[in-house]
Amino acid sequence: VRGEQRALARAVSLVEDALPEAEAILSAVYPQAGGALVVGVTGPPGAGKSTLVDRLTSLLRKEGRSVGIVAVDPTSPFSGGAILGDRIRMQGHALDPGVFIRSMATRGSMGGLAVHTAQVCDVLDAAGFQRILIETVGVGQSELEVAQTADSTAVVLVPESGDAVQAMKAGLMEIGDVFVINKADREGADRAAFAVNSALELRAPASAWQPPVLLAVAAKGEGVDELADRFEEHLAFLREHGGLDRRRRQRLEQRLRELVRAGLWVDFEARLADGAWRAEVDALVARRATPHEAAARLAGANAAPVRGRAGT
Amino acid sequence: VRGEQRALARAVSLVEDALPEAEAILSAVYPQAGGALVVGVTGPPGAGKSTLVDRLTSLLRKEGRSVGIVAVDPTSPFSGGAILGDRIRMQGHALDPGVFIRSMATRGSMGGLAVHTAQVCDVLDAAGFQRILIETVGVGQSELEVAQTADSTAVVLVPESGDAVQAMKAGLMEIGDVFVINKADREGADRAAFAVNSALELRAPASAWQPPVLLAVAAKGEGVDELADRFEEHLAFLREHGGLDRRRRQRLEQRLRELVRAGLWVDFEARLADGAWRAEVDALVARRATPHEAAARLAGANAAPVRGRAGT
Repeated sequence: VRGEQRALARAVSLVEDALPEAEAILSAVYPQAGGALVVGVTGPPGAGKSTLVDRLTSLLRKEGRSVGIVAVDPTSPFSGGAILGDRIRMQGHALDPGVFIRSMATRGSMGGLAVHTAQVCDVLDAAGFQRILIETVGVGQSELEVAQTADSTAVVLVPESGDAVQAMKAGLMEIGDVFVINKADREGADRAAFAVNSALELRAPASAWQPPVLLAVAAKGEGVDELADRFEEHLAFLREHGGLDRRRRQRLEQRLRELVRAGLWVDFEARLADGAWRAEVDALVARRATPHEAAARLAGANAAPVRGRAGT
Repeated sequence: VRGEQRALARAVSLVEDALPEAEAILSAVYPQAGGALVVGVTGPPGAGKSTLVDRLTSLLRKEGRSVGIVAVDPTSPFSGGAILGDRIRMQGHALDPGVFIRSMATRGSMGGLAVHTAQVCDVLDAAGFQRILIETVGVGQSELEVAQTADSTAVVLVPESGDAVQAMKAGLMEIGDVFVINKADREGADRAAFAVNSALELRAPASAWQPPVLLAVAAKGEGVDELADRFEEHLAFLREHGGLDRRRRQRLEQRLRELVRAGLWVDFEARLADGAWRAEVDALVARRATPHEAAARLAGANAAPVRGRAGT
């Protein structure tokens, strides 16, 4: 897999689209993965995540490290593709073979987003990228799961009052290993940092790691060095205390769970008798059956046609 | 179920916690549900959704309608409960028996959020509430699914530049039936409305309904009447063109799908041999097996112990 950007792009696309070839690629790639450190950058829309990722990439490249970037964009069910606006900014790295950038659409594949991200990371990892940056909007359940795909996660906020409160509500306070108040040349940055620190004190002490809160102005490159340093510190801390293995095991377990779930559904659909599904939905709509009854009947009947019992 | 707030609160809690009694409640309630109109209010954090829901509730109460409110809050995996800050504002309705308010935590129950919301709506619906308002953060995949639980959905944005672009990225443009630029006494409201209108023109014409874009200042009660009117118009439009039945059927189908999925997983877990799961995870961690191999082995083996094959 090593080296060639075009072959890599094709492999990633096959994996992302879950085409038949994907399983073979993933199986070939999996034993070779595990070497890369995966770093997440998450936060509310407009916090400046893309700019921060762009600057982090430049920094890592200066240090001679290869960087894979996976940007997870929420997708419109209509357009069916990631909106690439922010990615255009990253084109400074487009000709650098040491950088690979992929925008991933969320696609509405229920619960599968974290698995898909992890699979794409595997491909980049096996291709030899030393650092993988995952950029994702940090609001929403599936998106938080994606953030947890990383070994270390930065939560990016802006100084505007209330952002820290919103971050708490969004469950972001619990997943951050490092916090960044970006656009810190705006008013209220110190206050925001204070609010985040206060909120972090409420957080259950999951480990001895005390998440630092940094000020940054990513657009001017300020604070990016410090963020990179804090990531390294956190990764070193995790390695020292066994946290890296623990996090990775949890992730693999979650991934296995979702693959099994998906497989069970495929089997179920294959065994479903013609018209059985529709008949149960008809019964639901007419309120002749309850959802639990319909689900039990479909699951229990499996290979046998349900039509007779459920009516049409 | 009719009338008693305390009994209702208990029933909703049982359903929300998926306790054993839940299935009986849901089955009792389902045939009586379907009468309420369900309206969704969604948008990015800080857009003023709670205030808008509060004002809408007052308006509906003045019209003599009973109102059930389901507020879906992203939950911290640590605290395990919804953060109730915004709900406190709603306490003006706390003593009104014609209003029932429930904050629902997202809980990390994968993919189940929309189903849980729909179930709680059923209980409120059967209890005789005429309007149900669902308030949810409109960023994130699961949250968009929740928004689609409603018959009609308002997307709430603020005037700040970029909000419309972020809304597009978040997939909000496709799910809105009505758009509200809230906090419209701030600078840029007209520009934001224009941007939303432009974005709506890009939207595939799914139906003849052209989503209106309103200006509002919910905190002062401005624009709330118009929002209520637009909701009624949209619901009338849906009824006239069969869209209401179509939306509700799709929702029931999605709900059935998730219930079956959940049931398949429970069956799978029940059949799983002691230690089989752990053995496969061990193999994954050691990279002796790929996720697809492990999943296939677990799904295929079902009742038979996998330990022998998976090592350890």
